[in-house]
Amino acid sequence: MDIQRISSTQNTRIKHLMALQQKTQLRRSEQRIVVEGARELQHCINAGFKVETVIFCPEIFDISILSNTKYKLLEVTPQVYEKIAYRGSTEGVMAIVEPRQLALTEIKLEDNPLIVVLEGVEKPGNIGAVLRSADAAQATAVIVCDPLTDLYNPNLIRSSIGAIFTVPCVACTSDECIRFLKDNNINILTAQLQDSEPYYNTPMQGATAIVMGTEATGLTNVWREAATAHIRIPMQGQLDSLNVSVSSAILLFEAVRQRLT
Amino acid sequence: MDIQRISSTQNTRIKHLMALQQKTQLRRSEQRIVVEGARELQHCINAGFKVETVIFCPEIFDISILSNTKYKLLEVTPQVYEKIAYRGSTEGVMAIVEPRQLALTEIKLEDNPLIVVLEGVEKPGNIGAVLRSADAAQATAVIVCDPLTDLYNPNLIRSSIGAIFTVPCVACTSDECIRFLKDNNINILTAQLQDSEPYYNTPMQGATAIVMGTEATGLTNVWREAATAHIRIPMQGQLDSLNVSVSSAILLFEAVRQRLT
Repeated sequence: MDIQRISSTQNTRIKHLMALQQKTQLRRSEQRIVVEGARELQHCINAGFKVETVIFCPEIFDISILSNTKYKLLEVTPQVYEKIAYRGSTEGVMAIVEPRQLALTEIKLEDNPLIVVLEGVEKPGNIGAVLRSADAAQATAVIVCDPLTDLYNPNLIRSSIGAIFTVPCVACTSDECIRFLKDNNINILTAQLQDSEPYYNTPMQGATAIVMGTEATGLTNVWREAATAHIRIPMQGQLDSLNVSVSSAILLFEAVRQRLT
Repeated sequence: MDIQRISSTQNTRIKHLMALQQKTQLRRSEQRIVVEGARELQHCINAGFKVETVIFCPEIFDISILSNTKYKLLEVTPQVYEKIAYRGSTEGVMAIVEPRQLALTEIKLEDNPLIVVLEGVEKPGNIGAVLRSADAAQATAVIVCDPLTDLYNPNLIRSSIGAIFTVPCVACTSDECIRFLKDNNINILTAQLQDSEPYYNTPMQGATAIVMGTEATGLTNVWREAATAHIRIPMQGQLDSLNVSVSSAILLFEAVRQRLT
């Protein structure tokens, strides 16, 4: 096994790695992403993503866990790892990986698909948290419309704990998404306050897409008009909104409840 | 109105403010906490907390919004505010406030209370997020057992968006909490995998406490043994846990659903 060892944060490969972490444009032009953390990388490998280089710190991570020797390995010192880690507490391993751009037509629509649609959600951490809930509810897919971040933003990957690799995830425009849902006879349930029913009064056993907007501005008109039904989570307190990942989880698990009981 | 103006981050009052933000022990010994952000402060004032000093940056925050002139005012420059803000993007206002230590016996138990109990949850951000969901579900109280953080940690206040002031919140030991719940005939539903029923098969219309442990280690035996029933969220994906704030929201809103349908 050919292992390179790097002890300088000024090394060109380390600088390039950090640029990949920080720059959406570079990830796009080079078709390379950075996956950080042991669990995240394991889910990425299990999902069949093509891993190019594994970067690890032997003082923190036992590389023998990854038995596959096809990967190029890059060993770094604790000082270098600390510099390149997105959060200090990661497990001493990250990798450069080839991303996938899943298309709407590649979503496998089994009986009664359950899809989450996010429109204009800004924070990568929120999208990651939604993916985590979508994994737990075994949703068919998460569709991110008109995204303001790329799906392989390091913070999104980390907050999903790897669910970005276990849940089919598509980025597209709202128009494309609405056409896809309608062509496939999938009910469109938009989360909104106006003209809405409490979510638990709405059937979700059939083919269902749950559509969420941002906390600040909600959904745009194109979604309200495309909706099969408008649903709301009854807010009974003094604050006026729930986090989008919390709302998504409540709605997804209502669908799970209806399907399993 | 007597307004002091501070332009130096080395000012002793600014240094003291920052120490209050950072040090649990100092908050405890001085019985003072720091509340940051416009919404948070508004909820704090509405809840009748005693506000001592309001610190604001006139370039960012319009102090006339706070009509009450009883508060001492401290005006700071944008440079000073940036230094004292816990997160960069807050709204240019914070306050020094007298905390409250609510006791179990002060919780107002109306018909069929709905209580969230958190055991050993470490991250202040998670406790804050649970409080936010508890507000939305109009829970009776949140009880934090054997806390590893104080309830007025700045990150907890911020992530609750002020729900720490709208939802009665008590810190105590697990033993005290169990005695309180049993004395008041409140059903104890523990979230755990072993010997558990799916949560939606468990009645939550009556007096109910939903008890959650940490993501990593779950609940201790004292809680499992005190339980009226063990409940689980069916995990159908490839990851093995949900964030505690997401789990709490799913369980709380199942109680809301059962009570409202």
